[in-house]
Amino acid sequence: MIRFNCDYSEGAHPRILQRLQETNLEQTAGYGEDPYCQQARDLIRNLCQAPKAQVHFLVGGTQANLTVIAAALRPHQGAIAADTGHINIHESGAIEATGHKVLALPNRDGKITAEQVQAYCEAYWADATYEHMVQPKMVYISSPTEVGTLYTREELQALRQVCDRYRMYLFLDGARLGYGLAAQGNDVDLPTLAQCCDAFYLGGTKQGALFGEAVVLTNPALQEDFRYLIKQRGGMLAKGRLLGLQFLTLLEDGLYFALSRHADQLAMEIRRACQEKGYPLLVESTTNQQFPILPDGDLEKLQQKYEFSPWGRVDETHQAVRFCTSWATREEDVQQLVADIRAL
Amino acid sequence: MIRFNCDYSEGAHPRILQRLQETNLEQTAGYGEDPYCQQARDLIRNLCQAPKAQVHFLVGGTQANLTVIAAALRPHQGAIAADTGHINIHESGAIEATGHKVLALPNRDGKITAEQVQAYCEAYWADATYEHMVQPKMVYISSPTEVGTLYTREELQALRQVCDRYRMYLFLDGARLGYGLAAQGNDVDLPTLAQCCDAFYLGGTKQGALFGEAVVLTNPALQEDFRYLIKQRGGMLAKGRLLGLQFLTLLEDGLYFALSRHADQLAMEIRRACQEKGYPLLVESTTNQQFPILPDGDLEKLQQKYEFSPWGRVDETHQAVRFCTSWATREEDVQQLVADIRAL
Amino acid sequence: MIRFNCDYSEGAHPRILQRLQETNLEQTAGYGEDPYCQQARDLIRNLCQAPKAQVHFLVGGTQANLTVIAAALRPHQGAIAADTGHINIHESGAIEATGHKVLALPNRDGKITAEQVQAYCEAYWADATYEHMVQPKMVYISSPTEVGTLYTREELQALRQVCDRYRMYLFLDGARLGYGLAAQGNDVDLPTLAQCCDAFYLGGTKQGALFGEAVVLTNPALQEDFRYLIKQRGGMLAKGRLLGLQFLTLLEDGLYFALSRHADQLAMEIRRACQEKGYPLLVESTTNQQFPILPDGDLEKLQQKYEFSPWGRVDETHQAVRFCTSWATREEDVQQLVADIRAL
Amino acid sequence: MIRFNCDYSEGAHPRILQRLQETNLEQTAGYGEDPYCQQARDLIRNLCQAPKAQVHFLVGGTQANLTVIAAALRPHQGAIAADTGHINIHESGAIEATGHKVLALPNRDGKITAEQVQAYCEAYWADATYEHMVQPKMVYISSPTEVGTLYTREELQALRQVCDRYRMYLFLDGARLGYGLAAQGNDVDLPTLAQCCDAFYLGGTKQGALFGEAVVLTNPALQEDFRYLIKQRGGMLAKGRLLGLQFLTLLEDGLYFALSRHADQLAMEIRRACQEKGYPLLVESTTNQQFPILPDGDLEKLQQKYEFSPWGRVDETHQAVRFCTSWATREEDVQQLVADIRAL
Repeated sequence: MIRFNCDYSEGAHPRILQRLQETNLEQTAGYGEDPYCQQARDLIRNLCQAPKAQVHFLVGGTQANLTVIAAALRPHQGAIAADTGHINIHESGAIEATGHKVLALPNRDGKITAEQVQAYCEAYWADATYEHMVQPKMVYISSPTEVGTLYTREELQALRQVCDRYRMYLFLDGARLGYGLAAQGNDVDLPTLAQCCDAFYLGGTKQGALFGEAVVLTNPALQEDFRYLIKQRGGMLAKGRLLGLQFLTLLEDGLYFALSRHADQLAMEIRRACQEKGYPLLVESTTNQQFPILPDGDLEKLQQKYEFSPWGRVDETHQAVRFCTSWATREEDVQQLVADIRAL
Repeated sequence: MIRFNCDYSEGAHPRILQRLQETNLEQTAGYGEDPYCQQARDLIRNLCQAPKAQVHFLVGGTQANLTVIAAALRPHQGAIAADTGHINIHESGAIEATGHKVLALPNRDGKITAEQVQAYCEAYWADATYEHMVQPKMVYISSPTEVGTLYTREELQALRQVCDRYRMYLFLDGARLGYGLAAQGNDVDLPTLAQCCDAFYLGGTKQGALFGEAVVLTNPALQEDFRYLIKQRGGMLAKGRLLGLQFLTLLEDGLYFALSRHADQLAMEIRRACQEKGYPLLVESTTNQQFPILPDGDLEKLQQKYEFSPWGRVDETHQAVRFCTSWATREEDVQQLVADIRAL
Repeated sequence: MIRFNCDYSEGAHPRILQRLQETNLEQTAGYGEDPYCQQARDLIRNLCQAPKAQVHFLVGGTQANLTVIAAALRPHQGAIAADTGHINIHESGAIEATGHKVLALPNRDGKITAEQVQAYCEAYWADATYEHMVQPKMVYISSPTEVGTLYTREELQALRQVCDRYRMYLFLDGARLGYGLAAQGNDVDLPTLAQCCDAFYLGGTKQGALFGEAVVLTNPALQEDFRYLIKQRGGMLAKGRLLGLQFLTLLEDGLYFALSRHADQLAMEIRRACQEKGYPLLVESTTNQQFPILPDGDLEKLQQKYEFSPWGRVDETHQAVRFCTSWATREEDVQQLVADIRAL
Repeated sequence: MIRFNCDYSEGAHPRILQRLQETNLEQTAGYGEDPYCQQARDLIRNLCQAPKAQVHFLVGGTQANLTVIAAALRPHQGAIAADTGHINIHESGAIEATGHKVLALPNRDGKITAEQVQAYCEAYWADATYEHMVQPKMVYISSPTEVGTLYTREELQALRQVCDRYRMYLFLDGARLGYGLAAQGNDVDLPTLAQCCDAFYLGGTKQGALFGEAVVLTNPALQEDFRYLIKQRGGMLAKGRLLGLQFLTLLEDGLYFALSRHADQLAMEIRRACQEKGYPLLVESTTNQQFPILPDGDLEKLQQKYEFSPWGRVDETHQAVRFCTSWATREEDVQQLVADIRAL
């Protein structure tokens, strides 16, 4: 079986393992206070053109989300998110376990708009009983979203404006950030993210690292005492350098972006094959996740050779599915899949 | 101005004040361990035909909701509720502050159905990643709902069945329970509630008491150590007898139900006047809350003399409003309102 | 049996019941936004000479403590308290349930000193691993303490200084505040409290009200959005005026202080009788709680006629006990007790 | 500088890196459901002679502690621990952030006794107001403790008995478990731990792995839905096999114990050198942490060449320090240190 079911099936890019090997017996300070973390932080600040940003390395995405949100919100405040947002449906209530409500808005292709947020906040603050309702204090978005779509620069800037208007934080979950930055048609870069967001992260787990997310905090209000929160929520890795070293390897010469491009291009090949075959797409994704709608018969045939994820029945004879590529996907596997799709 | 805007504008039924006066200088044990609480508990158990139920007196509805839910759920579990449910939208995130997600389903007239719950649970448990999603462990309903509608006996029994099927608790918020039990067409009584629900409460605050809700726990799994939770969440009244005495007064000779009937009948008079006038109703309520849809002009005229609550614009020239009667509403005030509606 | 076991055995001062009766059928806005609450707030601000303070009325002491602390602290911060402090040992973990650690210091007669707090903070901030330890951000004291002792003006000012030095809040639990203010030798008044503390409260429950605590927030950092927290923690009384009216009655003409003096004087009579009898005192209290150490035989004799609280065995033949007077204690009961002590 | 300041300065045992390399491009299921985790679980169950135990792999110690405690306790329950226990002082309030109080008892050499726990529980349940106090439901111990001492088999069995008597869980933090099992004079093994404890873990982070702790749950009451808690608290590693593979490598042929013996033996050499020099020991440790008390002058000389941790001033001219060895400590470094101590 060839796996296209997720982007965390393999270990890490070989260069990462090599660096771990090379530095293995060095003795360094723990808890992220080693030279590798320091270098990786400086590098990320440079790439973001955000010299005053704080950078923290966490082990995984749920941990990053819950730690940022626990640090940012007072108890009566909540985070607006798309109803499809990872924090709303796929983290076992991690945000609620920190005491905060996720204020879900209906998504369009995994996204929410500044207009929706504006309308929500306007209605909220106009209600005479607003003190009886959770106060919206953060807008959480993921880009790429859970269905592979991207926020444009214009959309981000519009969200920034509505956040400013209602004194809210903008927090971008970048578990697959590289796949977005490398995508065809993308007009967002790291400095734009640093300007628009109070907090965001560069995912490592799904982007070539063994594990790890690099959280960038640009808003000083979120920076204060953040390391306490990391420790309290169980995210302070004793051998913190493992995280610094991985991000250093991925980012110091563009490997992160090269791997992302690789995955995106292969995903686009799958997409083209599906389109040529006449399969509609559930959403227009230009990143490493593709969601064609297959006739049941074709789906069953492909399942005999490939692993991929069911994504909901569309009608009596068609289902949406997800094909996921990654930094580790082999070209020959994609070519095989493309050939098999054509031959259906 | 005559107030029809809520059911907690006045103090308490005069008999309650009289009993407080009569017993004022008695010395009793604190924290609900006095004879009045004991008598009130026995009385409620009898009325519910539930000799093994626990009865606890709490000060208010939000407190009752959060204490029951904190006692019932493990950290990864949540409560299914209508999106209009009080715990979902009007308690400032009280449930999330206990760490639990409210799993909101779309309401119809303030209610959710057994079919909706069944579909939700079926899909939940069929999902391969269910461990990544909050586990539904409770169904929370309010009856009367936030828009005055009622669950029928059949609907409650159907919810009970789906709760049994998926090992969930059924918890009924009865902040206005009396107004429901006394309503025309209601086919539910206290023993039915005790049979169908794992936990429910008889509201006092909106039903003639100064304050107080009587929580009935029929499921032994919810009974263990419940008093700790009351204390921990700030709900253990030092002079607990104030609660016991009020429920004793309301329930020992049917005052609770008489006051509820009074409010319901006056609400139905307002409803009839609206219907005769040709005003549509937002929902079909037979309890103390009525939601006619008024032309803007009529609404403005009535606002000069009465207080009532806006309930959302329906179209460019019509708004829904809420008229709320209570145990304390005076007949002459309702007759005046009815006359004024007719005269519009 | 005559009860000296606590200060919440009876209802409320008759004038309070009378005011409840007189205003019972008035219609007012809910949730503390009525004229009585407004008047009571203004009155308390005047008494405290703190025109910019916020005043909020809560139902009980545990609720007041947990709501203030939840509003004040970020997740990694804790409250320093005496190990005998109410929040540390007698609230079923209410503070921990809000996510915060109580940092307990050894008490002397129920109190902690500025020196202790200074030493704690100094050591804390000098530790290289302070990010791994809960950050002290509040000092919680009760005055009178749980054993009836009082903080002096000088002690409060010293605590204020150390709080300023380490950017901490000073929060005073005044569940029995009146008994302290009225005590012989007390040199603290309400304006001093408002100057020294960021937050404190005037207890009502144990001081002549049916229930209720008046929380005074002098620090603007604690004022923001406080009402959300009240609602979220279940403390927002629908008929909020019940609280405003009670504090208005107690404070508008000094009843609060007169009742406190009454209780203190009777307590001092019990104390004198014990001292004359040669009973040592566990602590030097000048307030309504007295803690003599009795020979077992005398204790048993008194127990046949009076209820009072055991307070720990001192040696093989002696136990400490607590006698508690209140606003409601009758002079003749105290005279009887005094006579019986003399006759032992 | 040669580091003896902690046991997490280096990466991982080379064999672990080699296995990561060998398996790097394999595609496996995520979230701990891969064959390596399965094999490691079976192996641990065998080593523990506990075929029905659940084994879960978590990234770090704080995460393991907070996840087990969040899974085990209801909101009003707390965990008894030594005041020096890691959960009490060195996890930034992680346990309180899950809502639970740590009930600290005074330690002797980092340990608490069954007698202390018995006395605590006896007093607790005898108190008439126990519902107002956090209910002890778990005993948390670490072995080796934070100061390197060990619980004996007899001590563990005595704690088990008192836990049974008061229906409490016994949870052993084994962040340095191997160093304990390999220590001279130790009479505890894995099957004994599995019999005595409801939950415990084998530390990996400080024992030769890059990171990771293997949590063993022997009590079925703790097993239910545990994976939800892992996910909710941010501990579910996407590439879970990284954890399984490391424990497999450490445990399949005894490497874990060999590395532990290595560290312990080197620690004992340092200890002997200190004793020969006449330095008193703060505690009698036979594991990888040693706590000699040094004259200030000697300390300063050693600091010029070695890193180690200050552990508190003992008198005006002496300080306790900690020397820590690990799986990675080089014999020549220890010999150098020993020589330098002798030469002081």
